[in-house]
Parts: sequence; C-alpha cells; structure tokens
Amino acid sequence: MKNKKPNQGWKSKIHEIIYEADTPMGKWFDIVLFILIITSVILVMLESVKEIDTKYHDILLSLEWVITIFFTVEYIARIVSIKKPFKYIFSFYGIIDLISTIPLYISYIFAGSQVLLAVRALRLLRVFRILKLVQFLGEASQLTRALKASRAKIAVFIYAVLILSVIMGTIMYLVEDDAAGFTSIPRSIYWAIVTLTTVGYGDIAPQTSLGQLIATIVMILGYGIIAVPTGIVTSEFTKQGNTEEDKIHLNTQSCPTCSCEGHRDEASHCFNCGSEL
Amino acid sequence: MKNKKPNQGWKSKIHEIIYEADTPMGKWFDIVLFILIITSVILVMLESVKEIDTKYHDILLSLEWVITIFFTVEYIARIVSIKKPFKYIFSFYGIIDLISTIPLYISYIFAGSQVLLAVRALRLLRVFRILKLVQFLGEASQLTRALKASRAKIAVFIYAVLILSVIMGTIMYLVEDDAAGFTSIPRSIYWAIVTLTTVGYGDIAPQTSLGQLIATIVMILGYGIIAVPTGIVTSEFTKQGNTEEDKIHLNTQSCPTCSCEGHRDEASHCFNCGSEL
Amino acid sequence: MKNKKPNQGWKSKIHEIIYEADTPMGKWFDIVLFILIITSVILVMLESVKEIDTKYHDILLSLEWVITIFFTVEYIARIVSIKKPFKYIFSFYGIIDLISTIPLYISYIFAGSQVLLAVRALRLLRVFRILKLVQFLGEASQLTRALKASRAKIAVFIYAVLILSVIMGTIMYLVEDDAAGFTSIPRSIYWAIVTLTTVGYGDIAPQTSLGQLIATIVMILGYGIIAVPTGIVTSEFTKQGNTEEDKIHLNTQSCPTCSCEGHRDEASHCFNCGSEL
Amino acid sequence: MKNKKPNQGWKSKIHEIIYEADTPMGKWFDIVLFILIITSVILVMLESVKEIDTKYHDILLSLEWVITIFFTVEYIARIVSIKKPFKYIFSFYGIIDLISTIPLYISYIFAGSQVLLAVRALRLLRVFRILKLVQFLGEASQLTRALKASRAKIAVFIYAVLILSVIMGTIMYLVEDDAAGFTSIPRSIYWAIVTLTTVGYGDIAPQTSLGQLIATIVMILGYGIIAVPTGIVTSEFTKQGNTEEDKIHLNTQSCPTCSCEGHRDEASHCFNCGSEL
Repeated sequence: MKNKKPNQGWKSKIHEIIYEADTPMGKWFDIVLFILIITSVILVMLESVKEIDTKYHDILLSLEWVITIFFTVEYIARIVSIKKPFKYIFSFYGIIDLISTIPLYISYIFAGSQVLLAVRALRLLRVFRILKLVQFLGEASQLTRALKASRAKIAVFIYAVLILSVIMGTIMYLVEDDAAGFTSIPRSIYWAIVTLTTVGYGDIAPQTSLGQLIATIVMILGYGIIAVPTGIVTSEFTKQGNTEEDKIHLNTQSCPTCSCEGHRDEASHCFNCGSEL
Repeated sequence: MKNKKPNQGWKSKIHEIIYEADTPMGKWFDIVLFILIITSVILVMLESVKEIDTKYHDILLSLEWVITIFFTVEYIARIVSIKKPFKYIFSFYGIIDLISTIPLYISYIFAGSQVLLAVRALRLLRVFRILKLVQFLGEASQLTRALKASRAKIAVFIYAVLILSVIMGTIMYLVEDDAAGFTSIPRSIYWAIVTLTTVGYGDIAPQTSLGQLIATIVMILGYGIIAVPTGIVTSEFTKQGNTEEDKIHLNTQSCPTCSCEGHRDEASHCFNCGSEL
Repeated sequence: MKNKKPNQGWKSKIHEIIYEADTPMGKWFDIVLFILIITSVILVMLESVKEIDTKYHDILLSLEWVITIFFTVEYIARIVSIKKPFKYIFSFYGIIDLISTIPLYISYIFAGSQVLLAVRALRLLRVFRILKLVQFLGEASQLTRALKASRAKIAVFIYAVLILSVIMGTIMYLVEDDAAGFTSIPRSIYWAIVTLTTVGYGDIAPQTSLGQLIATIVMILGYGIIAVPTGIVTSEFTKQGNTEEDKIHLNTQSCPTCSCEGHRDEASHCFNCGSEL
Repeated sequence: MKNKKPNQGWKSKIHEIIYEADTPMGKWFDIVLFILIITSVILVMLESVKEIDTKYHDILLSLEWVITIFFTVEYIARIVSIKKPFKYIFSFYGIIDLISTIPLYISYIFAGSQVLLAVRALRLLRVFRILKLVQFLGEASQLTRALKASRAKIAVFIYAVLILSVIMGTIMYLVEDDAAGFTSIPRSIYWAIVTLTTVGYGDIAPQTSLGQLIATIVMILGYGIIAVPTGIVTSEFTKQGNTEEDKIHLNTQSCPTCSCEGHRDEASHCFNCGSEL
C-alpha cells in the first residue's frame, strides 16, 4: 500500500476503495456493501412470502430499486477502475455481480421473467468476497486446507455412497411395489439416499417385510458409513493442528491489473502478472 | 472461609448458606433447592397436560404456591445478604430468579397472563448454579474449554451451513412448486436446514424429479458436512487431553461483595473487586 | 483348571459344563444354548405376527415347549451345581434366566397373562453371557473401557441435552399451538428430543414462521452437538489404542462358590471370596 | 509388461487389452467400457420411469441391444483370452458379467421375466474393476485397510445395536398398541432400528406418553452410539496416517493364467500360481 504511485488518479482511488480493505474508506465501503447485500437478500425472501408481498409490495420494490441502482453503480465502478476489465467481467465474482444485479431490469423488459428475481439471492455469494477480509480468515483457511487434503478420500467415499444407493435403490424397486412409492428406479435411488444419509423423510417408506428388512440394512450401513468422512476429516484436522504455526501473513490488497489476491505484506509486485502493486 | 471475620452477623451467615456449598448448611440448602426446582419443573409440565390439570388442579396449584413462596423468600434473602444487591438483581441468575418466581403472582393480577406460567420452566436454568458445585465440574469445564477453543471454527462452520441453506432453499423455491410445500423462500430455507442437518421431518418434501435430484445433493452435503464440527471438536479434545493435568483447584466460595466465583483455595481476597473473602 | 480337585463329583462336572467354556463339553453346551436362545427369540417374534401365528400356532407352541423345558432343566442345573445358589438366583443373569423361562407356565395359570410371553425376548440378554467367552472379547472390552473412561463426560453431555430439550420444548409449547401437535410441555419436549437427535419423525412439526425459526436453531444445535460425544469417545479410543498392549490374559473359569469371573490363568484362588478354584 | 513373450499371439494381445490398463489400447478399452456401463445403467433407470418408457421405448431398446451385444462379445473375449477360463467364469466379476448381460436374452425366451431387466443395474459393480486402475487407488486402499483393521470392533458394535433394537422393539410392542403401527415384534424392531439410526421415517411413531418416553431413550442412545463407529474408524485412520509411507507400488497387470492381480512392478512371475507374467 505504501509504495503505490499516486499517478493513476481517481481510478486508483476507486480501486483502493472497492477492491481493498486496508484503508478506512475501503473498510467503510465493505461494511456498507455487507449491510446492503444482507438487506437485499432479506428483501428477496420477504417478497416470496405472498402475504407480506401483497401488503408491502411498494415499499419492498422501492428498497429493491435503491439497492439495485447501488449495485449497478458499483458494478460499473469495478469495471472502470480495473486495468483489465474483461478479466473481472468473466471471473467468478464478476459473473455473480452481473446476474445478481440485472434481474430487476430484465423483469421490466420481458413479461413472465419475474421468476428470475429469486436469482438475486445469489447476492449472498458476494458476502464471501467481503468476509475473506475478516479476522477469522485463518480458521476458514485451515478448514479449507483440511478439506482439500482429504479431497481424494472424500471423492472415493461419495462415489461409494452413490454406487451403494443405485444398487440398493434397484433392489428395493424389485422388492417393493408402486403403492409404497417405489414407482421407478430413480425414485428408489432417491429413497436409498434419503435413508443412507439418515434424513428419512418418510414420503417413501417400505411396506413389505422383505422391504423393511433391506431398509434396515441400508440404515445400519448409513449409520456406520458416516464414520468414514468423520474419520477422514478428523485425522486431517489433527495433522493440520500440528503444522498450524507456519502461516504467512497475507493482506487484503488486490492487484490493480489482474485483480488476483493473497499478496504478502512485504510484496511490491503482483506474484501473478508481475505489475506493481 | 477460615479468615472470614464474624462481624457481619446474620447477613454473612445467610450469604454462606445461600451462595456457598462448603459448609454442611450450605450443602443442605443446595440439595433442598435442587429438589424444589426439579419438582416445580415437573409441576409446570403436568399442568400443561390438560387431562392431568383438570383432575388434580387444586393439588398442583397448592404445591406450586408452596414452591413459589419458598422461591420468593430465597430471592429476598439473596438480595438482603449481599453487599451490592443491584449487581445480583441485574446479573444473569438474578433475572432468571425473578422471572421464574413472579409468573404466579402476575397470573392473579392480569387476566389472560396464564400463558406466562410456562416461563417457570426457566427455573431449570437455576440448576446450573447448583451443579457448578458438583463433583464432575472438572469434566464439564474440560468440555467448555474444548468448545471455547474451537469457537471461531464452529462459527465459520455454522455460517457456511446457513449460506448453503439460503442458496439451496432459493434454488428449491424456483424448482419446486407450492403444492410440495415450497410456498416461500423462508419456508424453502427451513426445508434446506431440515434436510442438511439430516432431521428430515417430511412435512415438506420435493415432488419433481429435478427437486429430488437437488435434494439428493443437499443430503449428501449434509451427511458429509457433519464431519467438520466432529473433526474440530475431536482434534480439540485430543489436544485438551494432553494438557489436562495443569488444572488449578477452585472452591465454591463466592465473593460477599460482588458475588463473583471461581476463587482459588488459597485466595484471601476477591480477584475481581479486591474485597476480603 | 488343572489344579481343581475331583472330590466334588457330578456337581463339579455340571458346573464345569454349564458355567465354563474351556472344556469340549462346555463349548458344545454353549453352542447348543446359543442356537436355542436365537431360535426361541425368533419363535417369539413369529408368534407376534398375526398371520403366521394363525397358520402355524401348534408348531410354534410345540417348539416353544421344547425350548422352555430345556431352559427349565438348565435353570435347575445351574442352581444345583453352584455352592451358593442364592447368589446366582439373585444375580443379574439369575433373574434374567428365571423371567425368561416362566412366562409360558404362567400363561396357563393366569388367564390374560399372554402379554407376558413377549418378555421371553429378554432371553436375548443371555447371549451376552455366552459371547463373553468368544474370541472378540478383547475388542468388546476395549470398547467398554473407552466408554467407562468417558462415562462422566457422557453424563454431563446427556444432562446438557436434556436441559436443552426441556427449555426448547417449553419455548415451542408457548410459540406453537395445539393444531401442530404441541398439545402439552411433555409432548413438546418429546418433539425437541426428536429434533435435537436428528431423528425427525415429522408426527409433530412446527407450522408457524417463528416456530420454524426456533426449530431451525434446535436442528443446527443438534447437528453440532453430535460432535461432542464423538469427540469424547474418539479421543478416548486414541488413548486406549496406545495402552492396548498391557492386557492380562483372563480365562473363562468361574468360581464354584460365588460364581464371579475374570480369573487370571495362573490364579488358584478366587480373588473375590478366596475359595479354591 | 516388458518381459512378456510374444508367442501367445492374439490371445495374449486380447488379454492385454481387456484385462490390463498399462498399454494405450488397454486404457482406451477401459474408457469405452466405462462409458458403456454408465450409459447402460442410465438406460435401465430411464426404462423404469413409465412416462419415458412409453415415449422412447424403441430408442431405449435399440441402444440396450447395442450395449448388450458389446458386453456379450466382451464376455466371450474374456473367456477365450484367459488360460483357465473356468476360474474367470466362477469368479465374482465373471458371475457379475454374466448376470448383467443375459437378462435381455432371457426376457425374449420367457414371458414375464421382464422384471429381471432391472438386474442389469448390477453392471454398475463392474465399474469397480475399471476404477481399480485409476489414480486414487491409494486412497481407496487406505480406506479399505482402516475398515479392515477395525472389522472386529465394528462387528461387536453392529451386534450390540441389533440386540438393543430387538429388546427395545419388544418393549415398544408391549407398550404401544396396534393403532400406532406396532402390529408385531418384527415391525417394532424395524421401528427401533429406524429410530436408533436417527433415520426417523415417521411411518411408525409412538402415540402414548410411556411409548414416547421410551422412544426418547432410544433416540438419545442412538444419538450417542454413533460416536462409537466414528471413534473406531477415526482412531484407525490416525494410526494409518502414520504408516502411510510404506506403500509398495503395484501395477495393473493381471496374471494370464489365473487372472489374479496386484503384482509388484518388478515381479516376473505370478505370486499366486507361479506362472510367468
């Protein structure tokens, strides 16, 4: 931050406010953005409740317009203030920003596209961008590392669960008849997953003795199988706990050229594109 | 206890009986209080069962009056015997004591306030004050320490579960129609949490193929995600197990001035307000 | 076994067959007993299924009589062959043996006592006595030791779950109305436990928005709380794993005087009553 | 692979393609086979959905014939190219290959045997043979080793769960009446397992106060018991993690005589039958 040249003028200023959180302005911007995102998500929820929507439709819509305009301005500012705008536009957050901003505009252009308004709940994903800057980053990154390290084992586990569900579902389709809800193999597989994961809705449940016996086996399997991901993640956490100290302090600065993040405090050039920070 | 001056007279005596458990009288008081609390909570439960309330209304009410009067006397004694009564009155347990004692009086003053009587179940919280003095304090405090140490990680985890629920709930609101119970986004989020936590009531369940496919993903996520808090707490417990020996013996004495607790056996002054113990 | 004197004649012989499993005869007796117990439990189950009972009543009853007579003879032999019969009669297994043998006799003496026949399913508990002698004793005892070591922690945990259920149940009783199934506090507590343990029958489920919000909190609590017993038991298992080698080899001999078990191979006197083995 | 003699001609060539994955041809064969298996399983599922089957019956059937003929050719090639064909035919995968290939033929010979068509979902098991060759073999084998090492403990655990279910089921059969769904002891045991494993369909649920109290105990037991398999597997995983480095690199070659697998890279003779690789 210290060695940033002031010659990029207002663009650099906006970049600092919008993309970073090391300056007071940047922090304030993030807090306002956070509140607006949460408010807007609550608005989307309230609109979906018919009674509330009927009563307070106008207030909700006005608030929605205020927030949408703020997000539109922010979206344009993000494009303008970055050196390589297309990198931002086609990045994950760029796309999220766009599709969580435009539904309100579209709903006026195309009739029947009101359904799209619920898409605005995706704005919640934007919270991740802000929270990345928050204190408990360390905790989250330890979580992420533990999950990444056990990725392959978890994949094997999920694969095994799916195979088991398909086979158990098919067997139940043969054993039980349509009246109990096992009308097709996909539905029976759905039942098998509902049972294996111990969710157990009860919308489809075996009626025959043989079906209940097989269901019993699926349940005990599911009850036992849950030990596997737990064992994987726990042993990974225990390992992680021992190597926790070798963390490097990263700051919240993002490269003004390629917008990549996670630079060290002492870094003066972007580790990705090499341009000055 | 030994170096307590006898010049505070009966107030000091009552303080010792009510607030501490090191003397025989103090122990007896705690046991009687414990039995009365459990009895009164059972009374509250029985009153709520219509058949029982109709039959034994008078007996239940008489017993309730006996217990309420005891609690009233105890509440006044607690205020009188302490040096800074307002500190007690506005403390967590002070408020609990008050709101678990007055409902019976209020129900005679204001008609329709019978609903408040159920508030008396909060008396159960008072059991914690007594149990703090019990043998297995060590175990509980180890539990508490393990949970405290993993507080930040658990917060990140709960946050992730909530975000996931909101997004999955919104997707299901778009995919499923009202007939299946997905009438609004909040209800769909409720469904998502019911499914993610593997509770699975079945009051709201997906009906369409696409909905069931997405539900399947939510279930497997929920089934796998449970490994995360387990991993966190387990690795914390394993750590705690290694440092278990360095416990300091605390006694049940509480400061007569500020009523704070957890003094060491050898302490002669309150570590909080500095007044003599 | 080697230093047992032969002067106790046939009683000692029967004692060896019935109570021990070191001799070929003793092993055969245990295997026959095991098969009879399993058969008799299956018989009890089949009798409870109305269709099967109507069709095969006579066959089931005959088989039941054969097994009951065998158990009667065994029960008498157990009493006769032991030096202190009353110790056996009033021991846990002595009582189980009696109440799992007599229901058939009683059902002929008192009309309407057919209900008692289901009590015979308790015979299953007798399997534990036999299995104690089986190979995987070591595994089971490690399990038992791990559970014993974490007994106090598990008690604190169950206590906390119960308190939480009572408070959450009472809150839900106030929030939800009778139509949703929350007709009394005990029923609401039942709902709270069903939800906290992630069983989720769905016979009682919140209908109002506030009720669903509170239910959501209970679910996430329950989903997270499960990490606690898992953490306790796992950390205990990991400890146990390190001290597994220091097992003492125990044999299946039981004292002919007081019938207590778990004697070391080299023992020549009962560690409990001091009489010769 | 390098020291294989070319004198076995085309049989050896086919053996290499079908049974192994070290050559480019072998890899391609495996990929094609994998796609065909997945396609065919999806076909079986789609056929079971009545609406889809009615509309696209002819397309589904044609595709099914193409795949069945491919599998038939493959099955014959497997028999021809191996030295001891009967060993393959009566091996686990040999039987799976046969019974997942013939249902379509049989459905034309015997009327009413259409039910058998669902058996083709067993083709999914064949995926395991292919995946054995895939990268994450190491992960899967670690999983398998951890589960094998805790086999005995898991057996004790499942046995305890079953005993508990039988006893709890019997008690509930005595306590609850038929109206609540507890019509026979086997059904009550089914309920006990549904509750213990926290699946909780809700198709059978206690109605009386006593029944709900007992159900509550079963739930808390089930909620706590899940800690046991988790503890077992986790402590096993933690152990495995420490000994992970001593893995021997195995290749995908299979013996041309006895088709057993898992040969070391440097092996020149089958470790099972001694014939040259």
